[in-house]
Amino acid sequence: MADRAALEELVRLQGEHVRGLKQQKASAEQIEEEVAKLLKLKAQLGPDDTKHKFVLKTPKETLTGKYGEDSKLIYDLKDQGGELLSLRYDLTVPFARYLAMNKLTNIKRYHIAKVYRRDNPAMTRGRYREFYQCDFDIAGQFDPMIPDAECLKIMCEILSSLQIGDFLVKVNDRRILDGMFAVCGVPDAKFRTICSSVDKLDKVPWEEVKNEMVGEKGLAPEVADRIGDYVQQHGGVSLVEQLLQDPKLSQNKQAVEGLTDLKLLFEYLTLFGINDKISFDLSLARGLDYYTGVIYEAVLLQTPAQAGEEPLGVGSVAAGGRYDGLVGMFDPKGRKVPCVGLSIGVERIFSIVEQRLEALEEKVRTTETQVLVASAQKKLLEERLKLVSELWDAGIKAELLYKKNPKLLNQLQYCEEAGIPLVAIIGEQELKDGVIKLRSVASREEVDVRREDLVEEIRRRTAQAPCAC
Amino acid sequence: MADRAALEELVRLQGEHVRGLKQQKASAEQIEEEVAKLLKLKAQLGPDDTKHKFVLKTPKETLTGKYGEDSKLIYDLKDQGGELLSLRYDLTVPFARYLAMNKLTNIKRYHIAKVYRRDNPAMTRGRYREFYQCDFDIAGQFDPMIPDAECLKIMCEILSSLQIGDFLVKVNDRRILDGMFAVCGVPDAKFRTICSSVDKLDKVPWEEVKNEMVGEKGLAPEVADRIGDYVQQHGGVSLVEQLLQDPKLSQNKQAVEGLTDLKLLFEYLTLFGINDKISFDLSLARGLDYYTGVIYEAVLLQTPAQAGEEPLGVGSVAAGGRYDGLVGMFDPKGRKVPCVGLSIGVERIFSIVEQRLEALEEKVRTTETQVLVASAQKKLLEERLKLVSELWDAGIKAELLYKKNPKLLNQLQYCEEAGIPLVAIIGEQELKDGVIKLRSVASREEVDVRREDLVEEIRRRTAQAPCAC
Repeated sequence: MADRAALEELVRLQGEHVRGLKQQKASAEQIEEEVAKLLKLKAQLGPDDTKHKFVLKTPKETLTGKYGEDSKLIYDLKDQGGELLSLRYDLTVPFARYLAMNKLTNIKRYHIAKVYRRDNPAMTRGRYREFYQCDFDIAGQFDPMIPDAECLKIMCEILSSLQIGDFLVKVNDRRILDGMFAVCGVPDAKFRTICSSVDKLDKVPWEEVKNEMVGEKGLAPEVADRIGDYVQQHGGVSLVEQLLQDPKLSQNKQAVEGLTDLKLLFEYLTLFGINDKISFDLSLARGLDYYTGVIYEAVLLQTPAQAGEEPLGVGSVAAGGRYDGLVGMFDPKGRKVPCVGLSIGVERIFSIVEQRLEALEEKVRTTETQVLVASAQKKLLEERLKLVSELWDAGIKAELLYKKNPKLLNQLQYCEEAGIPLVAIIGEQELKDGVIKLRSVASREEVDVRREDLVEEIRRRTAQAPCAC
Repeated sequence: MADRAALEELVRLQGEHVRGLKQQKASAEQIEEEVAKLLKLKAQLGPDDTKHKFVLKTPKETLTGKYGEDSKLIYDLKDQGGELLSLRYDLTVPFARYLAMNKLTNIKRYHIAKVYRRDNPAMTRGRYREFYQCDFDIAGQFDPMIPDAECLKIMCEILSSLQIGDFLVKVNDRRILDGMFAVCGVPDAKFRTICSSVDKLDKVPWEEVKNEMVGEKGLAPEVADRIGDYVQQHGGVSLVEQLLQDPKLSQNKQAVEGLTDLKLLFEYLTLFGINDKISFDLSLARGLDYYTGVIYEAVLLQTPAQAGEEPLGVGSVAAGGRYDGLVGMFDPKGRKVPCVGLSIGVERIFSIVEQRLEALEEKVRTTETQVLVASAQKKLLEERLKLVSELWDAGIKAELLYKKNPKLLNQLQYCEEAGIPLVAIIGEQELKDGVIKLRSVASREEVDVRREDLVEEIRRRTAQAPCAC
């Protein structure tokens, strides 16, 4: 009966939530309170009963406290019901929320969808306010570094197959960074903000980063200098081993955990045959708050179009890491689900691919049409419609000009412009003979094909290499 | 030089627009004024120069005045810069804006993406606030009814191939509706709102619709009755011919145009072999303002899961029509591009397909994994990683359990649960012999395969039917 009362209260509260505090400007605290109430009630109810009712909205507090200083880029949305909602900032936080809400402890999935940032757009560099992300994540309690290694393997596979030029994957670990901050003398409360400063090292020189740490963030200059000594190092597994012997770092539990895992990771990456693509880089910090272990970021070394030209400057094209605490933030009982994943910067990659095609002056066909259904004389629209319908029904990609009496020349020109390889020409004589004239646009050769053989002949002529499905 | 000055003014105004009236609550009129200024300047500049700067945002006034009474469902978004933005309501208006902004006069395309409605969600009926639409449109000046017929052919093809049960496509024409309203005595100013009332006829009986027309919208009862006589009729091409002889309708230019086109459409649909799926229905009105000609809507006649059960009530599963004026609304000079298109209700269709699968108790495999790389003894993680990497590099869909020393039984059980058909088992003896034990999960048969032949053997055993790419 307690359950019943809780359920009724929950339905009432949700009714309010959905109909929504009309016109009233709810403060963030009011909403937080309400959500706390709902989550408490939900916990009492146990799983599943009301699951669907919870996933309808993404209130702002789902997103706050996960992205660190990047949070200012979250796109807020104030709906007419007076609720504070936001557009999703990435696919990771919604994924974690989904796991918690559905009590999933074990999943591997990819997701391609749009995310939103209140950033300054830079179209030529593929930076937009609304853009696609492509994420892959592995959630679950497993033995160390095996899923992490798979994520890096997948990242390398994707970037290699896209042929966007040589790349390097920088790897680091949040525990190494935190350990390093501790042994350098950074106060605990400043770890995250100093981490954000370090993250800028791929764009600005160390001196500027140091100025930010000391000037803006109040770090002692000697502490900053100690950080500087570390973060300017990068290398392979030998650097990991060297730092495991470092007099200061080797005394820090977190740093040693991170370094030990990184050593194991390098072993697995060697077995996967991608160790030559990986660089342990102590300056890699990643801006987001939610990472807890290994972090990585792929950068292009040179773009294909970059022959004597200015570098394109697309920055990183893929990134990710381990976030073991995020799912627990959405679970009423704080149950953790360890996760590791990666995000591919599809828009940036597209702008590189487009630039490459432009540089090569490659013409890209914008349709897959195999055949244009054309007519040699007037008054054959009905025959063209019948034939194109026959071809469609047989699975052939066919089109026709939307004119009652198009000129044959115009129909042939259309094929040349659109890259359509074949023309099926209907004429009065052909109709009498039960044939269709099949013309190759490239060779201009024409043959009469019996109507009942036409589909097979088109298939034969446009057969592609065996597909990889 | 006038151009130069205009450009500078434009850049200045856009700078303001982008940095954005910070904190200030801009009224709709202020924004309208600003946009009018920008469009005027853009017209002076001519095409292309500043094209990219204009497509970054979707201000609210892009969406207003296109959807009629449904406009209340537009999701507003007030960004921190103080601008009034909105989430897109459908894919049609953004498509029209795209054509106008890029001066395209001729295109055929499909688009699958999310749209947003401030509606009351109904999950079981596949109605959400954020959902996918799948649109197909043909834009360009063509001979009458040819692209329109292709849209209906495509709608029927899609719905047939999805196997969601028998369906019917209701067809009407805005010009017939408007002509009908005129001859019935509806005042011009009330055409659109009376159209919205008629649109409700698929959900509520005529008496209720009449009450709305008379009570809420102030129509004379005898005018409503005249409308009632028309909108309760439906049929095939013979009804079109009958109405062409109707003493009142045949005197109205618009109605005659609509009926003549509809007669031609039925001819083409007969050639396409889909005339038996089409019903001319005078009660079909479509709520949106932007339609100008033929309109259509597909409804399911019976769902496959509906054996003695309650009807699912998913309503229409696809709809569309001709909108010849929409592109002109976004062109500074009002240049029109005639368009016709359709939208598939993918979410509704998914909920039907899911219901069918549930009813059939069909188990759907959630992965495409061909083979699990397993080990028979402990301490073989490195060997499993090496083999899985080999298989991945050869394009085989393979996975392994993320444990250092998993039990063979657990690995086999995982395959049964996940529907993975093959297991590649590594053992110490097999390693010495240079073979891998390949096990069929279904038959439990095991054979030793030479490592160099493994990829080919997995391919052979998991070969699928030739694909339709």
